[in-house]
Amino acid sequence: MIRVGILGASGYSALELMKILLRHPEVRITALTTRQTDARPVGEVHPSLADRLDLALENLPLAEVAERTDCVFCCLPHGASAAAVAELLPRGKKVIDLSADYRLNDAAEYQKWYAVEHPDPARLPTTVYGLPEIYRERIQSADLIANPGCYPTSAILALAPLLRAGAILPRGIIVDSKSGVSGAGREPKAHLHFPECNESVSAYGVGTHRHMPEIDQILTDVADAEVRVVFTPHLIPMDRGILSTSYAEPTGEFDDASLLGILKEFYAGEPFVRVSKNLPTTKHVSNTNFCDITVRSVRGRVVVVSAIDNLIKGASGAAVQNFNLMYGFKETTALL
Amino acid sequence: MIRVGILGASGYSALELMKILLRHPEVRITALTTRQTDARPVGEVHPSLADRLDLALENLPLAEVAERTDCVFCCLPHGASAAAVAELLPRGKKVIDLSADYRLNDAAEYQKWYAVEHPDPARLPTTVYGLPEIYRERIQSADLIANPGCYPTSAILALAPLLRAGAILPRGIIVDSKSGVSGAGREPKAHLHFPECNESVSAYGVGTHRHMPEIDQILTDVADAEVRVVFTPHLIPMDRGILSTSYAEPTGEFDDASLLGILKEFYAGEPFVRVSKNLPTTKHVSNTNFCDITVRSVRGRVVVVSAIDNLIKGASGAAVQNFNLMYGFKETTALL
Amino acid sequence: MIRVGILGASGYSALELMKILLRHPEVRITALTTRQTDARPVGEVHPSLADRLDLALENLPLAEVAERTDCVFCCLPHGASAAAVAELLPRGKKVIDLSADYRLNDAAEYQKWYAVEHPDPARLPTTVYGLPEIYRERIQSADLIANPGCYPTSAILALAPLLRAGAILPRGIIVDSKSGVSGAGREPKAHLHFPECNESVSAYGVGTHRHMPEIDQILTDVADAEVRVVFTPHLIPMDRGILSTSYAEPTGEFDDASLLGILKEFYAGEPFVRVSKNLPTTKHVSNTNFCDITVRSVRGRVVVVSAIDNLIKGASGAAVQNFNLMYGFKETTALL
Amino acid sequence: MIRVGILGASGYSALELMKILLRHPEVRITALTTRQTDARPVGEVHPSLADRLDLALENLPLAEVAERTDCVFCCLPHGASAAAVAELLPRGKKVIDLSADYRLNDAAEYQKWYAVEHPDPARLPTTVYGLPEIYRERIQSADLIANPGCYPTSAILALAPLLRAGAILPRGIIVDSKSGVSGAGREPKAHLHFPECNESVSAYGVGTHRHMPEIDQILTDVADAEVRVVFTPHLIPMDRGILSTSYAEPTGEFDDASLLGILKEFYAGEPFVRVSKNLPTTKHVSNTNFCDITVRSVRGRVVVVSAIDNLIKGASGAAVQNFNLMYGFKETTALL
Repeated sequence: MIRVGILGASGYSALELMKILLRHPEVRITALTTRQTDARPVGEVHPSLADRLDLALENLPLAEVAERTDCVFCCLPHGASAAAVAELLPRGKKVIDLSADYRLNDAAEYQKWYAVEHPDPARLPTTVYGLPEIYRERIQSADLIANPGCYPTSAILALAPLLRAGAILPRGIIVDSKSGVSGAGREPKAHLHFPECNESVSAYGVGTHRHMPEIDQILTDVADAEVRVVFTPHLIPMDRGILSTSYAEPTGEFDDASLLGILKEFYAGEPFVRVSKNLPTTKHVSNTNFCDITVRSVRGRVVVVSAIDNLIKGASGAAVQNFNLMYGFKETTALL
Repeated sequence: MIRVGILGASGYSALELMKILLRHPEVRITALTTRQTDARPVGEVHPSLADRLDLALENLPLAEVAERTDCVFCCLPHGASAAAVAELLPRGKKVIDLSADYRLNDAAEYQKWYAVEHPDPARLPTTVYGLPEIYRERIQSADLIANPGCYPTSAILALAPLLRAGAILPRGIIVDSKSGVSGAGREPKAHLHFPECNESVSAYGVGTHRHMPEIDQILTDVADAEVRVVFTPHLIPMDRGILSTSYAEPTGEFDDASLLGILKEFYAGEPFVRVSKNLPTTKHVSNTNFCDITVRSVRGRVVVVSAIDNLIKGASGAAVQNFNLMYGFKETTALL
Repeated sequence: MIRVGILGASGYSALELMKILLRHPEVRITALTTRQTDARPVGEVHPSLADRLDLALENLPLAEVAERTDCVFCCLPHGASAAAVAELLPRGKKVIDLSADYRLNDAAEYQKWYAVEHPDPARLPTTVYGLPEIYRERIQSADLIANPGCYPTSAILALAPLLRAGAILPRGIIVDSKSGVSGAGREPKAHLHFPECNESVSAYGVGTHRHMPEIDQILTDVADAEVRVVFTPHLIPMDRGILSTSYAEPTGEFDDASLLGILKEFYAGEPFVRVSKNLPTTKHVSNTNFCDITVRSVRGRVVVVSAIDNLIKGASGAAVQNFNLMYGFKETTALL
Repeated sequence: MIRVGILGASGYSALELMKILLRHPEVRITALTTRQTDARPVGEVHPSLADRLDLALENLPLAEVAERTDCVFCCLPHGASAAAVAELLPRGKKVIDLSADYRLNDAAEYQKWYAVEHPDPARLPTTVYGLPEIYRERIQSADLIANPGCYPTSAILALAPLLRAGAILPRGIIVDSKSGVSGAGREPKAHLHFPECNESVSAYGVGTHRHMPEIDQILTDVADAEVRVVFTPHLIPMDRGILSTSYAEPTGEFDDASLLGILKEFYAGEPFVRVSKNLPTTKHVSNTNFCDITVRSVRGRVVVVSAIDNLIKGASGAAVQNFNLMYGFKETTALL
């Protein structure tokens, strides 16, 4: 039985994480932290968990978290997260970091996009990016995992097989993503107020979203050639789900069947990627760890459409998938 | 041409008011106020009005508002509203107050429900409640109008004809209301954060909502007998609309047709109340000043269902209807 | 390992049932039926189940269903359901019927509300109503279960404890319910077309809904006195969830605490009913088998608010809870 | 006073058209047609118009429509529309056709995309495409207008100024559009059933949507060079609104300010296009005839984001704007 802690347990990712972990036969949740000074029962912070978990969110020192746990999921904001991780790893804990802190492997790049100095730059070059479909082997032996961002998961899973196969050019890729509102977190903000974003769709962070360099870095690694995507996220009036429509230039003539074949081959045996000739919809992956993908050739362009649940495959489900790999449990445990 | 000002012009009621007034051939909007110190163009505060109105929201002293305007719509929070009204009326301005400040005619009752001392108690007993279907004549000669609350409008229009006709008992009335989220205002709050209230329905303010005594007072006046309703508001994941389902005990045997006849007779000639044998839906009154009503007899109870747009007939449309009556314009001007 | 079949596997209840049963360690799904003549893989009918279940929906004769299964969940329309059940039971199968066919214990009453003659009237008086919180013992030894309707579940769980305790009068009860659209089934209809019911709320079936006599019958049994509720269902623009606000007259003076105490005592030890002083919201029970309830005293009335997921506790979750009881599995298996 | 008829008056475009025309001081609606044999009062087909318009939808012969009207708005399905238009024009009526029948100027192209032979091919080459921002002068003297499609309106208004200015290349343009569900019409379909498309986003018609050749044709005319866009429409869980995100390659180095300058200059004086440095959202143009646009330079690409209400600027508002131009009324009449 692995004793698990969650740092920053009041948000949506932490809630989904708890729901999944409560079904995991090898896990006991033993610590939940919050920056608020007063301890609050989990059922008060997350009423859906009332009677499910007899634990409080507490402002615990990291030493106590380390004492109570074997493995820590870190749902803190960027900056705060790396500071905590740097204290937990030397105490022999395994850490899965759901923040952005260890995703970019270059401290200068991190500072450019996140506007803070990285608290733990030495670990950046070697931290494993927790996308099992790309880095499964490295994840199995890692003590620290950078859990991927939600948008990058949807974009990388869509494009990696085609780049790896040399079927599309590394340059000129466009990723147009549509996300439910839970991706913006639990803190109330003017543009996330129900009557503002309901019945409306808008683009945001055009050319400036922090997930853009993350997509670049992983796809560059996969392609072994520089990739710099144009990434446009959009806010959609729904709770959860990301649909990414990616556009790329093919390196030759490919019809739908051959493009689909490349994806099917790449994901053969993968438990959580479903390649189909049908166009995916976010509803069909909602509350699951699946990524559904299809690909089409349109007027000399390759169009890939991919769908995930931003809170599951895009965050907490992926985190548990990584956890299972790190501990040698069946990869799908608690995720089906 | 009437010069019109709006106090507290950053919220949803003010926005709807401006949209309606921009269509009014006898109105020019000449002053918009905000409590924020920096002036902001209306198109920045309400992007839907960009290029529509060349005016800024300013932190104007009331003396200047009085100078610039003939009539003032007051969209300030309760308490602040009466303080402003008390300064504007002596300057000869007509005022339509969309806050709750002048709805209750008793200062002690006001203090009990609103938890502040009333700043202008002397005017309470004589202020006209701006529901034209009940108080049209008094509105025509008023200088100050207490514009009705959204829930009370839906409940009073449903029940008043039956009470007036003596068809239902004044005691034991239940009003179960369902409202879109815009009724809660524009300020972001945790429970109005999109992923919290989307895909969810909940009751709130059970037995404690401030619209309860307002419904009581007007229905008591209409019935000439004490009415004390049990009122339960619910939050519905939609932008706008209120549906109220009211339950009462009949005083005798009434079938659907005779109940419907009472409503039809009461509202004969009314431009904004549509009585029908069909069950109303909020969508059919959305963005209109209509109230749709039907009534049924069920197992010895009378069930009345009424629908309005909370921001129009429940706020700004009613305000302009009152304005039209006060100035002798056609009652439907700018409202159809 | 119990071999399980689902009759009528193309709808929403069947989909939720499969999702739950796929997590059940003692179940293997071995037959899925459809009235359509062509067999279709489950992943085509329910894309969310692609790669999850290697089975097709087939137009199977009941004899073959009986051969392949030990237990059958029946999701057929009323009328068709009883006809199938009457063939399966003599073959020694256990049946959980999610249709309305065995809920009413009187064939004449059934014919009055459902407008068809009952195909299997002899079994009506003895069939067990599958609400474990009321009839757990009888469920454990039953071969046929009438799985409760969604609205009745929310209303009965709210009112039964107070009736049983004699705290409210059996007469004059009002149940005002609000349901997500999935409760209306998967078949496209004009009033369920997205742009018709989105951003709108309406009442329907006022005084005529078939769940009304079902609520009456069970509450009459619980109260040991005739109960005839006024029941008003409403359609809410959300996928799933029912919130029922019930109004009753107390038999004496009860404050909130004593009313809450009655509920807490009644549901002590129940794994799926959470009684709280807080007002429930459907989001907090969404995708769970929980029913959240609170109660308030308002102006001499008792107001009970209860929330369930209409597809889980209101249908498929309850069905599996009954299944677990019938087979002696832990009641919460696959449901937490 | 112009007597106006609407052919095919039961759908969403016709409803919006009536709402707008009821505000038009120079219009009287005198004929509404339906293919159903029984006449139905408009308030029954469109409950929101109850008491607004004392007219029935009737299965009228075109001769009678011609007799009753001066101008006809045609909301029939493609194919049926041209057949009607061909009968009305020789009778001296002006026609604004909201179907797709006269948008493409080549009969073979029409047949390829719409899979029917064109009933009136002779008029195709000369029919005016009713986008006032591009073809205002020709509209003023036209008797027949092909009212633009919703997606094309959003895409063409975004891209035309940049093509005309030679700032972007005609080749390689991508248009990624997001539309509310009303764009799919009023007929219930499986994928538009509320619980199917609510809380979900999906792409559809990838590479095959009929609006693609329409966009091509107009942009080719504007650019005076062949344009063939990759167009991907998406279904968004909201009633109305289209947001189009278009990607193009610049012909040189342009910063945000210079790109914005091109748009501002092109649309100077236009009453219904608002160019801004801010990203548009569909909510801010909802229920209006405005198109809001911005443009950004991102990593060597030009990204244009445009928002319209698909039923207003994308259909019925544009139709009335054309009507006003054809009759010499102020272009904004009934539209502000």
